[in-house]
Amino acid sequence: MILHTCDSRQYIRRKGYEQSVLDVVSDAIFDEECDNMVVIKGIDIYSLCEHHLVPFFGKVSVGYLPNKKVIGLSKVARIVEVFSRRLQVQERLTRQIAEAIEEAVHPHGVGVIVECVHMCMVMRGAQKVNSRTTTAAMLGAFREDVKTREEFLMLSKTN
Amino acid sequence: MILHTCDSRQYIRRKGYEQSVLDVVSDAIFDEECDNMVVIKGIDIYSLCEHHLVPFFGKVSVGYLPNKKVIGLSKVARIVEVFSRRLQVQERLTRQIAEAIEEAVHPHGVGVIVECVHMCMVMRGAQKVNSRTTTAAMLGAFREDVKTREEFLMLSKTN
Amino acid sequence: MILHTCDSRQYIRRKGYEQSVLDVVSDAIFDEECDNMVVIKGIDIYSLCEHHLVPFFGKVSVGYLPNKKVIGLSKVARIVEVFSRRLQVQERLTRQIAEAIEEAVHPHGVGVIVECVHMCMVMRGAQKVNSRTTTAAMLGAFREDVKTREEFLMLSKTN
Amino acid sequence: MILHTCDSRQYIRRKGYEQSVLDVVSDAIFDEECDNMVVIKGIDIYSLCEHHLVPFFGKVSVGYLPNKKVIGLSKVARIVEVFSRRLQVQERLTRQIAEAIEEAVHPHGVGVIVECVHMCMVMRGAQKVNSRTTTAAMLGAFREDVKTREEFLMLSKTN
Amino acid sequence: MILHTCDSRQYIRRKGYEQSVLDVVSDAIFDEECDNMVVIKGIDIYSLCEHHLVPFFGKVSVGYLPNKKVIGLSKVARIVEVFSRRLQVQERLTRQIAEAIEEAVHPHGVGVIVECVHMCMVMRGAQKVNSRTTTAAMLGAFREDVKTREEFLMLSKTN
Amino acid sequence: MILHTCDSRQYIRRKGYEQSVLDVVSDAIFDEECDNMVVIKGIDIYSLCEHHLVPFFGKVSVGYLPNKKVIGLSKVARIVEVFSRRLQVQERLTRQIAEAIEEAVHPHGVGVIVECVHMCMVMRGAQKVNSRTTTAAMLGAFREDVKTREEFLMLSKTN
Amino acid sequence: MILHTCDSRQYIRRKGYEQSVLDVVSDAIFDEECDNMVVIKGIDIYSLCEHHLVPFFGKVSVGYLPNKKVIGLSKVARIVEVFSRRLQVQERLTRQIAEAIEEAVHPHGVGVIVECVHMCMVMRGAQKVNSRTTTAAMLGAFREDVKTREEFLMLSKTN
Amino acid sequence: MILHTCDSRQYIRRKGYEQSVLDVVSDAIFDEECDNMVVIKGIDIYSLCEHHLVPFFGKVSVGYLPNKKVIGLSKVARIVEVFSRRLQVQERLTRQIAEAIEEAVHPHGVGVIVECVHMCMVMRGAQKVNSRTTTAAMLGAFREDVKTREEFLMLSKTN
Amino acid sequence: MILHTCDSRQYIRRKGYEQSVLDVVSDAIFDEECDNMVVIKGIDIYSLCEHHLVPFFGKVSVGYLPNKKVIGLSKVARIVEVFSRRLQVQERLTRQIAEAIEEAVHPHGVGVIVECVHMCMVMRGAQKVNSRTTTAAMLGAFREDVKTREEFLMLSKTN
Amino acid sequence: MILHTCDSRQYIRRKGYEQSVLDVVSDAIFDEECDNMVVIKGIDIYSLCEHHLVPFFGKVSVGYLPNKKVIGLSKVARIVEVFSRRLQVQERLTRQIAEAIEEAVHPHGVGVIVECVHMCMVMRGAQKVNSRTTTAAMLGAFREDVKTREEFLMLSKTN
Repeated sequence: MILHTCDSRQYIRRKGYEQSVLDVVSDAIFDEECDNMVVIKGIDIYSLCEHHLVPFFGKVSVGYLPNKKVIGLSKVARIVEVFSRRLQVQERLTRQIAEAIEEAVHPHGVGVIVECVHMCMVMRGAQKVNSRTTTAAMLGAFREDVKTREEFLMLSKTN
Repeated sequence: MILHTCDSRQYIRRKGYEQSVLDVVSDAIFDEECDNMVVIKGIDIYSLCEHHLVPFFGKVSVGYLPNKKVIGLSKVARIVEVFSRRLQVQERLTRQIAEAIEEAVHPHGVGVIVECVHMCMVMRGAQKVNSRTTTAAMLGAFREDVKTREEFLMLSKTN
Repeated sequence: MILHTCDSRQYIRRKGYEQSVLDVVSDAIFDEECDNMVVIKGIDIYSLCEHHLVPFFGKVSVGYLPNKKVIGLSKVARIVEVFSRRLQVQERLTRQIAEAIEEAVHPHGVGVIVECVHMCMVMRGAQKVNSRTTTAAMLGAFREDVKTREEFLMLSKTN
Repeated sequence: MILHTCDSRQYIRRKGYEQSVLDVVSDAIFDEECDNMVVIKGIDIYSLCEHHLVPFFGKVSVGYLPNKKVIGLSKVARIVEVFSRRLQVQERLTRQIAEAIEEAVHPHGVGVIVECVHMCMVMRGAQKVNSRTTTAAMLGAFREDVKTREEFLMLSKTN
Repeated sequence: MILHTCDSRQYIRRKGYEQSVLDVVSDAIFDEECDNMVVIKGIDIYSLCEHHLVPFFGKVSVGYLPNKKVIGLSKVARIVEVFSRRLQVQERLTRQIAEAIEEAVHPHGVGVIVECVHMCMVMRGAQKVNSRTTTAAMLGAFREDVKTREEFLMLSKTN
Repeated sequence: MILHTCDSRQYIRRKGYEQSVLDVVSDAIFDEECDNMVVIKGIDIYSLCEHHLVPFFGKVSVGYLPNKKVIGLSKVARIVEVFSRRLQVQERLTRQIAEAIEEAVHPHGVGVIVECVHMCMVMRGAQKVNSRTTTAAMLGAFREDVKTREEFLMLSKTN
Repeated sequence: MILHTCDSRQYIRRKGYEQSVLDVVSDAIFDEECDNMVVIKGIDIYSLCEHHLVPFFGKVSVGYLPNKKVIGLSKVARIVEVFSRRLQVQERLTRQIAEAIEEAVHPHGVGVIVECVHMCMVMRGAQKVNSRTTTAAMLGAFREDVKTREEFLMLSKTN
Repeated sequence: MILHTCDSRQYIRRKGYEQSVLDVVSDAIFDEECDNMVVIKGIDIYSLCEHHLVPFFGKVSVGYLPNKKVIGLSKVARIVEVFSRRLQVQERLTRQIAEAIEEAVHPHGVGVIVECVHMCMVMRGAQKVNSRTTTAAMLGAFREDVKTREEFLMLSKTN
Repeated sequence: MILHTCDSRQYIRRKGYEQSVLDVVSDAIFDEECDNMVVIKGIDIYSLCEHHLVPFFGKVSVGYLPNKKVIGLSKVARIVEVFSRRLQVQERLTRQIAEAIEEAVHPHGVGVIVECVHMCMVMRGAQKVNSRTTTAAMLGAFREDVKTREEFLMLSKTN
Repeated sequence: MILHTCDSRQYIRRKGYEQSVLDVVSDAIFDEECDNMVVIKGIDIYSLCEHHLVPFFGKVSVGYLPNKKVIGLSKVARIVEVFSRRLQVQERLTRQIAEAIEEAVHPHGVGVIVECVHMCMVMRGAQKVNSRTTTAAMLGAFREDVKTREEFLMLSKTN
């Protein structure tokens, strides 16, 4: 069956659904006396749009305000991988990353910004080849405190 | 009759008037637990000015605050197509896109910004070859809340 | 009849066919002891593609090596106007401008470069929104002498 | 069957194989006294890699030296479409575009340069996210004459 | 044993643990009538991630509001060295630098910003080659006074 | 008579025709053992087009290879003034400046390049607001020796 | 034993030595009528210096002139991986990549350019933090033909 | 004795200690009805660090709000010279320049910003070759009024 | 006499005429086995035009091919000072600097390029505020060997 | 004695004279089948001018054509250190680096380019604050073969 050679789907299968967030982060939560914002930005992301099975890709920025615990940086990248290697919509993917960080280290707040090009907007009917989509998910202090959100937006700009 | 080969008009006819917004978006409204701003920016747009039948073209940015429902991204591009493939004025076009998004997903608010070059300013009498026109339409939270509007303006800048 | 309000066609009619090159330049040929290259560059151009009746537009550079006679500079712009205000293809338009300069002042050589965006490539089927087309016409010394052509290409770059 | 919703494959089927080059260009070959190089550059291209069924995309530049005939510009874009809407490898796609131009207008020479990002290099094993691939095809005067090739390389740089 | 030739670990051993902050700064605290912010920025930093023993590296900015005492500038660089030549996590390293400055000159406040590339995110599983991590530590006036923090963020941008 | 209030013409009269080149340079020719190229570039120029009495303006570059005599630099600027404060065409103005330098110091060669915007192309019919015109005059070694001309072109580019 | 957690070495072991070039490319050599240069550039590379066990990283450009056969693009990336996931010196790594391409598709010529930052120059004694190392390997036509080498150098510049 | 040839020290001796501020400015204080901020920026500065006798150098910006008197601009540069030609620490140097301006013209306020590279951070142990140090001194309105300080910071940026 | 208060003249007197080249360089000629080109570029220069007693200023580049002897770098700057602190014309100043280097170290060749703004062109009648003057002096290998001169021109460009 | 605290001299003593080139490179010469140019560029360099005991600093580029042997990259940096930590003149330093590379690996050729700012030109009499000095040393193929030298100059430009 030709599906078996469909690499995009293999991309989805192999890592996305087989791994849970707990698998990924369980051994990389550390106690650290740190309560200033941590920002990991410029993370490349590739996923498949669940409506058209066509790739979308771009950059992710993740920020959080630690609450006695920090998460290993490469684990943040793994969380991004776990959720991007599923059939997705960008809005849900953004929220899932934020919730996984929250679940993992129970911080004072989390912010996630995703900016992607969607091949379905580029290759299909309307063919808007220059368009990009930005989504955000803000939890805790990032949602309630304007100052915290602004500081995150400022720090998450990749130079 | 020479009109039959007039492609500009065919551009208008073929897609603009025959499609309703419901046709375009009906199968692409999804339930999603997402209440952060979604921004689609840098969408190329081409339309015909209804007074001179001369093209105008540029970029559109669309933002909205989801209210339990999100719209498929390529459908946003299709909505832009539906209204641009009519004889238009830029001010009305801008408003129609905003209203279609509102009608489709009933969000907490919608914002649309359009920036175009008008060939009628370039090829006819005054010949202002370097001028550009910017129009905006803000509905709901985008209209009432200054912070929301500022966040949209900031995110809609194509880098 | 709706054709009467079709401004694009009026753009074509009013100036393009009614004027001959002789009308335009007859009173602006001057005797001048000048035999170095003259280059007029960055001339904005707007025309209508004769196959789709859709605009194309861009920049023209014109260069010539005078042979005892020079042409008034604004007449070069008028020549560009005369031929662009017709239904055109870019290749022919480029050649017509070159031949008109040759006819007007019998120079040692003429070069014309035209770079345009074609709305027919942007608004119709394939929608290649970022493409541009470059055409050239070289007569006399501009065709036969590599050094002359290189000097023209170098001088015609608008900074 | 899930394949029916696999949009990438629909992208391939719908236009790529059903159209021949003759269908596309038959009514857009014009006699024109033009023998200077014509360059169409910055054409956006999207295709599917035939080994992984994953998209690749980038820009195409096409140049040719007319031999009494010219091809409608939007037809060049359509030729690019016909061959990119098939399962492809970039090297063959580049050559096919060049050969189609040659077949259509029998020019003195043709040159095609394609520069693409391949999602298979980005999403699969090695994940070389910043790599790009450049291929070229040169026929006739573009292959035999160094000067002609250099002129094409120079003109095909999109500014 | 092969470990003996493992230079990364030698990097850690030689300077990081053998020196205390007091050793480094004891002879470089000066009385100075200065109570305006002092900022040392663009300090290159190299350290080893304690989880993967893989390097991370980037830039540090240090600011403080002197309270009758200033610290020799090259000693700030030495403090950065002392803590970076240990097995580290970036969050702790950032805090340790801030606390060492505080301990050394008892200023009205201290701010430290660290921005690094982590080879563990680049060479291991997820391979996010373009990502960068930003951490901050704010003490005293830098934590309590928004104006002071903003002034520090502004001055610490390396041009 | 309306000419009397026409300020453009007063600009022309007052300096252009009343001064001869000899008046201007007579006391500023110096014996100097110098035989390397001297280049004065970026000289602002303002003149009136003799056909439309409308201004044109831009930059002049002057180069010469001294033959035992040099000319005071400000006198080069005065020569430019003398010929630009007349009703002019740019081609003639370029040649007159070159001939005046030649007459004044009998150098081994002279080169003059003038690049201007013509208000007649901007304000009148065709309205080519972005066009610029470049003219050159080369005498002696600047005409006969390619190397000398290239060196002048290279040095006359204002950075 | 602490070595087991030494990730840099795991990086080396897991992929570098277990795979031969034949394993990697055996199923990705295709017959293709293509004899123009193919260039894959901007490939990120990470390796470990065999003298200090410290990482070095940068970019690789690979070019070849096909001789009836082409290699799958992602396989070029895999070849780069195979040789970089060993203990290396940059000079040998550069040559090995070139030889593997040659062995795989027997092209008319191969060129490889590698530019890296070496952490051993940055973290150890001399600490030359801004230095970069460039190495090249040229085989066949890339070594013997100056024109071919220049064309490769020109095309391999990542924009 | 080798010290006699130590030029760095001669640099210090000759001008720094022999001149008082009064000597420098006594004849260059003028009555002027001017009460808007005066900023002199981009002043090159070279001094010797008093702990290591190694140079540091960079740029100074000086601003003040005149109070009926202004100081000759070249005297500001002289004041910078007087204090930099002493053995210094950057923090004290910054304050001394500010106090000298205050003493000279009794303005409503003074601000001084100094940004330097310290050779002691570059040539000695830690070798932080890319680091720069910024110090500020604010007196009167520049210290008490946030608006005034922000205005000075904004104006003192050398473009 | 008003001349006595003319500061420009004091600038001239104090250093320019009282020092001979021998005074300046006598103790700074060193034997050195060096026969590659030495280039000192970007030397700021200030002088007075001898016709109008008005300043001119700019940059000097000096290059020479050593012949067993080298000159102390700061002495090159002093030679530039000696000749610029006289009443000058730029052509003579350029030649004098070249001849002084030749006299001092008898090199295989010397090249000097001076580019200045002349206040006499800016402040007096013609007011050509944007003009700059470039002069050159080439001796020995710099005059006779095109390759040497080109290498000097390339290296003397201040980045 | 104050000399003991003179850090610049300590900089010289500690590493420069105590180490010979053999000490530095003896264990870092490797047999490698590599005969393409190796370039190490952007190496920061700091030294003391032997006439004024004032620092000079800048960048070094080193290139060589291997002859069966290569030198460890960090050893190139160490060679630069050995010779820069002596009292120097830039011309000799440049030559010594080239000769040390030659002595160490007997390559087919060596090229070294050094570009520095000299504090003696900046802080002493003439105060040429923007000047920079470029020196080169070319041995073997780098001296005799123009193509080799040009390739080195091209590759040694730090981007």
